Amino acid sequence: MTKINFSDEYFMKQALREAQMAAQKDEIPVGAVVVCNDQIIARAHNLTETLHDVTAHAEMLAITGAAEYLGGKYLNECTLYVTLEPCVMCAGALNWAQIKKVVFGASDEKRGFMKHTPPIFHTKAQIQGGILADKCSEMVVDFFKNKR
Amino acid sequence: MTKINFSDEYFMKQALREAQMAAQKDEIPVGAVVVCNDQIIARAHNLTETLHDVTAHAEMLAITGAAEYLGGKYLNECTLYVTLEPCVMCAGALNWAQIKKVVFGASDEKRGFMKHTPPIFHTKAQIQGGILADKCSEMVVDFFKNKR
Repeated sequence: MTKINFSDEYFMKQALREAQMAAQKDEIPVGAVVVCNDQIIARAHNLTETLHDVTAHAEMLAITGAAEYLGGKYLNECTLYVTLEPCVMCAGALNWAQIKKVVFGASDEKRGFMKHTPPIFHTKAQIQGGILADKCSEMVVDFFKNKR
Repeated sequence: MTKINFSDEYFMKQALREAQMAAQKDEIPVGAVVVCNDQIIARAHNLTETLHDVTAHAEMLAITGAAEYLGGKYLNECTLYVTLEPCVMCAGALNWAQIKKVVFGASDEKRGFMKHTPPIFHTKAQIQGGILADKCSEMVVDFFKNKR
């Protein structure tokens, strides 16, 4: 029996699976999972085209799903894994949710929240980038390459 | 017959009516309407408590409603009226929606998007604050006063 190693890489791979599902729907491939006590309580991928809704980013849907699972709106014991650096909308939502930790894969120089001041997240929130960054980035780059 | 004057004040009053509906549900009273060609195509109020969902701000629900009405995700011919200065989440969403114009009532010094740099909105987006500001502000202040 293989013991599952609940590492950041493990959960990022789960987020990448979600991103893959987005790609299959011709959506910009971004995926997210919310983890609480080493358990995935919500999975989501970008659905902005499918739903005709700019608010349907992977992170937003994951937040809503996790809150529904928990029966409360705060995710202060949860970690969100997402394949791409969140935009300001998603960072703002994660901050309202009082998320404990955010782990992202690829950076988003153009649309990411990191360049914004004052910082969107509370100083106590843990933010970590770069997990499986190459794989996460590759997925988005390949998507747009195939579009040309 | 009274001719309706489609002024900013008129539409802000409609947003205030939505805020009133939020207050009646014991939600922080913020309301929004989306206007296209002098017609209100979406109305919404804050439902974060009711839905246990931090993403259920008035603006977010109004964006989703307007996009559903239009059958497309871009609101580039629309104006959003909201009683309170949007937070970064909502500003980010409005930017993704390519909203033409945002008109807000009361400023939100603590949570508003205006203090953030670089600016969240595209330089072409029209932003206007202060419409019926006193009334809009009073509504939120009264809500918290009654909570004590």
